[in-house]
Amino acid sequence: MREARIIKTARVKLNKPILIAGLPGQGLVGKVAVDHLIKETKAKKFAELLSPHFPPIVVVQKDGIARMIKNEFYFLKRKGNDIVFMTGDHQGLTVESFYEHAGKTLDFAKEMGASFLLTLGGLPLRKISKAPKVYGAATDAKLIRKYSDYGVSFSRPGDQIVGAAGLLLGLGKLEGIDGVCLMGETHGTYIDPNSAKAVLKAVEKATGLKLNYKELDARSKKMQKMFEKMKGLQQPPQMEMPKQDLSYIR
Amino acid sequence: MREARIIKTARVKLNKPILIAGLPGQGLVGKVAVDHLIKETKAKKFAELLSPHFPPIVVVQKDGIARMIKNEFYFLKRKGNDIVFMTGDHQGLTVESFYEHAGKTLDFAKEMGASFLLTLGGLPLRKISKAPKVYGAATDAKLIRKYSDYGVSFSRPGDQIVGAAGLLLGLGKLEGIDGVCLMGETHGTYIDPNSAKAVLKAVEKATGLKLNYKELDARSKKMQKMFEKMKGLQQPPQMEMPKQDLSYIR
Amino acid sequence: MREARIIKTARVKLNKPILIAGLPGQGLVGKVAVDHLIKETKAKKFAELLSPHFPPIVVVQKDGIARMIKNEFYFLKRKGNDIVFMTGDHQGLTVESFYEHAGKTLDFAKEMGASFLLTLGGLPLRKISKAPKVYGAATDAKLIRKYSDYGVSFSRPGDQIVGAAGLLLGLGKLEGIDGVCLMGETHGTYIDPNSAKAVLKAVEKATGLKLNYKELDARSKKMQKMFEKMKGLQQPPQMEMPKQDLSYIR
Amino acid sequence: MREARIIKTARVKLNKPILIAGLPGQGLVGKVAVDHLIKETKAKKFAELLSPHFPPIVVVQKDGIARMIKNEFYFLKRKGNDIVFMTGDHQGLTVESFYEHAGKTLDFAKEMGASFLLTLGGLPLRKISKAPKVYGAATDAKLIRKYSDYGVSFSRPGDQIVGAAGLLLGLGKLEGIDGVCLMGETHGTYIDPNSAKAVLKAVEKATGLKLNYKELDARSKKMQKMFEKMKGLQQPPQMEMPKQDLSYIR
Repeated sequence: MREARIIKTARVKLNKPILIAGLPGQGLVGKVAVDHLIKETKAKKFAELLSPHFPPIVVVQKDGIARMIKNEFYFLKRKGNDIVFMTGDHQGLTVESFYEHAGKTLDFAKEMGASFLLTLGGLPLRKISKAPKVYGAATDAKLIRKYSDYGVSFSRPGDQIVGAAGLLLGLGKLEGIDGVCLMGETHGTYIDPNSAKAVLKAVEKATGLKLNYKELDARSKKMQKMFEKMKGLQQPPQMEMPKQDLSYIR
Repeated sequence: MREARIIKTARVKLNKPILIAGLPGQGLVGKVAVDHLIKETKAKKFAELLSPHFPPIVVVQKDGIARMIKNEFYFLKRKGNDIVFMTGDHQGLTVESFYEHAGKTLDFAKEMGASFLLTLGGLPLRKISKAPKVYGAATDAKLIRKYSDYGVSFSRPGDQIVGAAGLLLGLGKLEGIDGVCLMGETHGTYIDPNSAKAVLKAVEKATGLKLNYKELDARSKKMQKMFEKMKGLQQPPQMEMPKQDLSYIR
Repeated sequence: MREARIIKTARVKLNKPILIAGLPGQGLVGKVAVDHLIKETKAKKFAELLSPHFPPIVVVQKDGIARMIKNEFYFLKRKGNDIVFMTGDHQGLTVESFYEHAGKTLDFAKEMGASFLLTLGGLPLRKISKAPKVYGAATDAKLIRKYSDYGVSFSRPGDQIVGAAGLLLGLGKLEGIDGVCLMGETHGTYIDPNSAKAVLKAVEKATGLKLNYKELDARSKKMQKMFEKMKGLQQPPQMEMPKQDLSYIR
Repeated sequence: MREARIIKTARVKLNKPILIAGLPGQGLVGKVAVDHLIKETKAKKFAELLSPHFPPIVVVQKDGIARMIKNEFYFLKRKGNDIVFMTGDHQGLTVESFYEHAGKTLDFAKEMGASFLLTLGGLPLRKISKAPKVYGAATDAKLIRKYSDYGVSFSRPGDQIVGAAGLLLGLGKLEGIDGVCLMGETHGTYIDPNSAKAVLKAVEKATGLKLNYKELDARSKKMQKMFEKMKGLQQPPQMEMPKQDLSYIR
């Protein structure tokens, strides 16, 4: 295996699906949100992306079975546009692999006839907010107006979106597929189900899906208790981010 | 040489061989175990894997001859399934090379008509145990039941298996070859012949091979003396492992 | 996307253009200079270079639109040789990508019928000079004589030119396109509009262009005030440069 | 340029040449030795190796001309086997590039009809010796006997030879070209003309060449004065070497 490949595990015919992607990143916001969508909508798995750019490990599942690191695709059939959810264990480990994985995902999206991209993630602000805002970026001015009506703020120009959540939009636009990235305000260092909920509220408005938040609320409570205990303690070390002074890029 | 290649050094016809692989890793458990198997069974070398992803060095042998870094394949003909042993100096140096080497090895395994994969390694627990347990992971539930009968424990879900021992199983399953990974409990930092012996005891049950442990026992004794001297001394630095918070992967 | 590619965004026919390139580097001298040239001459964009070797991010523009990291090409039609300006957000992140990007740029230059290369950059001397000198390197002795007349000094043999500013010359020569690199003396750590101006003065002489420096002068004043405040303060950490003892290369 | 390539700058017909290679490495012993051979024998340049794996820089020569980083080939016609000398600015920057460069060099050697490889380097022992020994490794037992007669010691089994000096032998053997690596004992951190001289004494015996050592002796004297000054001073930091515990490789 010298490059990433997408393997179909079930044959499905989809109607102009929307691709909603959330991979591990800041506060795991995007992944937690998409995993919640998959669970709540009972979407079914139909494809997976394997790649030599993932960590060279296998994971031992609860049942003792070893499995590869991967990204996964789930589908939901419904009136109007179907939905494809993309989640996963990991993003690539090298700079180039981000472009390769996003490119392969878009090839697959085009093959499915995808009509729109919705990418979910976290915006790391290094503080904990009880009512996290949702910030956005889009490929098109009309989309900005539309998503502003859903409560998404487009007021942070100059920000950079790292990884798949950004590259899917950037490369998607080159291929003629529009998209929006929704980023929940988050600390960045901690898993943030509360920020994921904020993002999902905007997804509900954009897609018409109706979600139950019981489980996410319970996880948020646990996290909040932990934060309260930590107050007064020394600040934990930040997640390691590649540091580059890119501040001149506008 | 731009990618790894396997060079046959002897022509052999094998009957549905089992591939037993042990490359350098935690406590060198896998490599020590397979090297012992090769020595005890007098298996013969018939192929080697060379790769541009190995350290760019040659080794000066005892006789003054320079030789490349490599992985090696040995065969043992016997009643029923023949056995192919895989050992080596090193694993690849880049993330992608682990996938490439495991992929090339599986191509070779399929060409030989391999029927089963047994990968050996160490599970680093940062403590020294006199009676190391053997933990396992498999590609199939039936195999878990079978190897549980051999005293292998499948009770550590969530663990990750790093490198060839894991990837051979993961990629093997995609190619339709089942397998089991046996991991001897080990400290991780020290060469551990005692853990290798524990793993080999399970290999004996699985393959019907009978082994002599004189040499391994002598090496274990030496190591134990060293550990006793070290008690009270400052803990030596840990082996460097790539650190990544993968704890959310299940 | 597995390698860099140049995408034309407008169709243009150019007359033996001079390529003037300034990408981010020491003191941002080259980029500031070329961006100023583009603004002052009202050059028009006609192509961009995208690459999997750029940081795997998108930038959110002022209008909320996400865009890829890229290098850009602008053209200016005029009497005699037309001019193509090359600017960008970033250089590649890997050693090999510098060669790939310079190679693709030269392929594009040849396709346009480019007659000459002028690359702009900064020479980091770790001190702030009010009247920065301009140092040069060229592919040809005649060019050295010509540019010496424009006030460019060729008195720093043994220096190395890092990145596109150097590789475009080196690879250009192999392809039969001559060129000169102009490097403004700069501290290296700070954006240096004053050094960019010094470089542009030489560009004016070499190309016959006439430039207005109001904006650059204003930016220089701001920087100078900042430097005066900093006096007496601890020296800030240097920009990270790959360290290698290459002093034996002549 | 996506891979290394060798460009011929002059057409030459050679008679079964011996390739004598010395690239930058420990104490620069190999490079200093080959550069001395080129100068003393007045060998002529006829080819160069360019590569995207070299540092992405150009060097400004004494005359102000910019040139690429490269490796170079010089030839010497004489009775019996001609000689080709290989020297250069640098070895590759990535693991894989060592294999690629050695591979391309061997392809070129075979095209020239090369009959033998002699690679020169330093063996870093972290101490300064006035009469440095020369250690060797070879592809063949006969060669070991022959070079032992020239005063070369083959008594350091287990050593590793890093980079081109080793890989040319290892890969050469696979291609059917025998070779010997000669390593002068050296500190490793300092340029060591005295060790280069010791190596060249063995080269004289092996090739029948006669060399003048005036220049090398003068350079050695300078280095020795520097060492005497340094005595009593704190030990300087060691050259950075990739650290890996490869001690189990035999």
